[in-house]
Amino acid sequence: MRWWHGRLAASLAVLLAAALALGSPAPLRFAQDGRFKLALFADLHYGESAWTDWGPAQDDGSGRVMAAVLDAEKPDLVVYLGDLVTANNLPIPNATLYWDRVLSPTRRRGIPWATIFGNHDDMSFEWPPEWFSPAGIPPVHCPPSSTPASRCSFRGTPRMELITAEINRDSAGLSHSSVGPKELWPGVSNYVLQVLSREKVQDPALIMYFLDSGGGSYPEVISGAQVRWFQSQSQFLNPDGRIPELIFWHIPSTAYAKVAPKPKSKIRRPCVGSLNLEDVAPQEAEWGMMDALAKRPSVKAIFVGHNHGLDWCCPYDKLWLCYARHTGYGGYGDWPRGARIVEMSENPFSVKSWIRMENGSTHSHIVLA
Amino acid sequence: MRWWHGRLAASLAVLLAAALALGSPAPLRFAQDGRFKLALFADLHYGESAWTDWGPAQDDGSGRVMAAVLDAEKPDLVVYLGDLVTANNLPIPNATLYWDRVLSPTRRRGIPWATIFGNHDDMSFEWPPEWFSPAGIPPVHCPPSSTPASRCSFRGTPRMELITAEINRDSAGLSHSSVGPKELWPGVSNYVLQVLSREKVQDPALIMYFLDSGGGSYPEVISGAQVRWFQSQSQFLNPDGRIPELIFWHIPSTAYAKVAPKPKSKIRRPCVGSLNLEDVAPQEAEWGMMDALAKRPSVKAIFVGHNHGLDWCCPYDKLWLCYARHTGYGGYGDWPRGARIVEMSENPFSVKSWIRMENGSTHSHIVLA
Repeated sequence: MRWWHGRLAASLAVLLAAALALGSPAPLRFAQDGRFKLALFADLHYGESAWTDWGPAQDDGSGRVMAAVLDAEKPDLVVYLGDLVTANNLPIPNATLYWDRVLSPTRRRGIPWATIFGNHDDMSFEWPPEWFSPAGIPPVHCPPSSTPASRCSFRGTPRMELITAEINRDSAGLSHSSVGPKELWPGVSNYVLQVLSREKVQDPALIMYFLDSGGGSYPEVISGAQVRWFQSQSQFLNPDGRIPELIFWHIPSTAYAKVAPKPKSKIRRPCVGSLNLEDVAPQEAEWGMMDALAKRPSVKAIFVGHNHGLDWCCPYDKLWLCYARHTGYGGYGDWPRGARIVEMSENPFSVKSWIRMENGSTHSHIVLA
Repeated sequence: MRWWHGRLAASLAVLLAAALALGSPAPLRFAQDGRFKLALFADLHYGESAWTDWGPAQDDGSGRVMAAVLDAEKPDLVVYLGDLVTANNLPIPNATLYWDRVLSPTRRRGIPWATIFGNHDDMSFEWPPEWFSPAGIPPVHCPPSSTPASRCSFRGTPRMELITAEINRDSAGLSHSSVGPKELWPGVSNYVLQVLSREKVQDPALIMYFLDSGGGSYPEVISGAQVRWFQSQSQFLNPDGRIPELIFWHIPSTAYAKVAPKPKSKIRRPCVGSLNLEDVAPQEAEWGMMDALAKRPSVKAIFVGHNHGLDWCCPYDKLWLCYARHTGYGGYGDWPRGARIVEMSENPFSVKSWIRMENGSTHSHIVLA
């Protein structure tokens, strides 16, 4: 990571070592060059058709995309933007194995990450109808278990179990994922990360809000309780709106459908992007999150995944609504894979973004703030 | 039970005492008067809207229906024909409590029973969308748990856990339910019960096959593996077809749609019944079960639930396809509640059936063999 180099390296190394010893992540901070770069990995959909050759080959492909992006961009933080796994396609009682594989390219490079849930991450297994034909069920591996009730019940791995396993296995202190407050249940991935200033060592220079937009085991929605939580968090952390803020969740809000370019038409300014090949698939309801965000000039942009055939950013009031880019070979769609990159400069503050493709090219450059 | 009286009472009492000591059920047997009577309790749907007054009142109503039928008919066995609970409406991590309540009126009267699964019994909780509005989630009671992952995940209680709890709690030896062979998984309630002769003490005089017609956590289907199992079981137990056979599952096979009276028309002979108010909602596929059954003249009738607005019997080849009668106040439909009664005479063998209503009346009398 870039901030290893320079004048603060020695003291930061001490801090980092202390954090590693505790297994808790080192604070995020703008680098020596004044920049902080995110890579958004969206819709990796690991674990599809694990009983075929095709499925594991897809996951290998997704691993190569992540490796290519990480090596080209060297981000300071990876945001896994939901649908890490296709749990409805996983005939195993515990999906944490696949979840862990998704994190592997990032962990291997010592890069910190944060995860949020998509609608596929904790889905129940959808039994292929042909498994009930006379041909029967192909060999699926149910682990021996002392409780026959839990054996191969294929009910999806609860969000809480996925995130708890991620955090517990993170001996290197790279996971910044958190379990949100209990009152936001059944939503789990609701938390805030602050990126500290390079100049004023104790001060946050960027605040990132991660929200669970539901789906899978419960409706695809951001609740009234989440809206209240965001309002109180942002009021507490950033009462005067001095610190710029970014927002991350998985399923586009209904506002995305309002600003979207006409489906399958060319993407025209002020929107910027390269894929406009399907309709926005929005959340089931809007309980006030968009109003809460639009009211805060400090909120610069929202980033979502979910629609593999869309990769644009469009303006909505004074903020930007952005899609990431389908990163995984898993999931529907054969569009070339890539990842949205988001790079902030601290002073003067700016947010630039582009899409980095598996083949090394970049496109859809845009200034978001 | 009627067979307590008469010449065999003493020896049967000894057998019963031995069985009770083991917690295993006493054998089923035609009574002194040569008869064996079943009550079919279908679609009780316990546990709906437990967070309202209305839901628990529904369950009280269902309990009164069962009590009325049991006291009027004094059956030798109750068959719970699936959808005992509406698990998709149960905001609790363990539905065995409600399952146990459903059995209570029968257990309290010392009457044996057998259960099979319907499509609602192991469904995941369907979150009411309004719980995500600013009004929020009403108080739901999640038990304290050592594993945060399992706390209030509301993923439905697996079939195996429901049936295992039923059997383990059955200290009086009344449950005849069984876990079927592993190779029929994910179907669980696949088993055979024999009713012994009054005359030839060791010989079965009736064979009943119980099949899991799926739904909930897996597709609504009877699999090719279940067909093979039925064929081998029936060949082994009743190779010459000398013993009459009855069949029980929850979701009508596609054959029901073929023989059904025109929807909402009057039910005419040879069909007999009183409710014909909706379309047959059949299984998703037919993998050979109906052919296997139609080939055996010993098979007299199939009994299903699932369609609350249908209660007819119609002929299909040489056997009868019968609906039970909606017994529960839970589940859709406001038609008066009741239960199908099936009474066999051993010698000469006959099967008579009628519907016993909550108000004490009977109707739809029919001879099925």
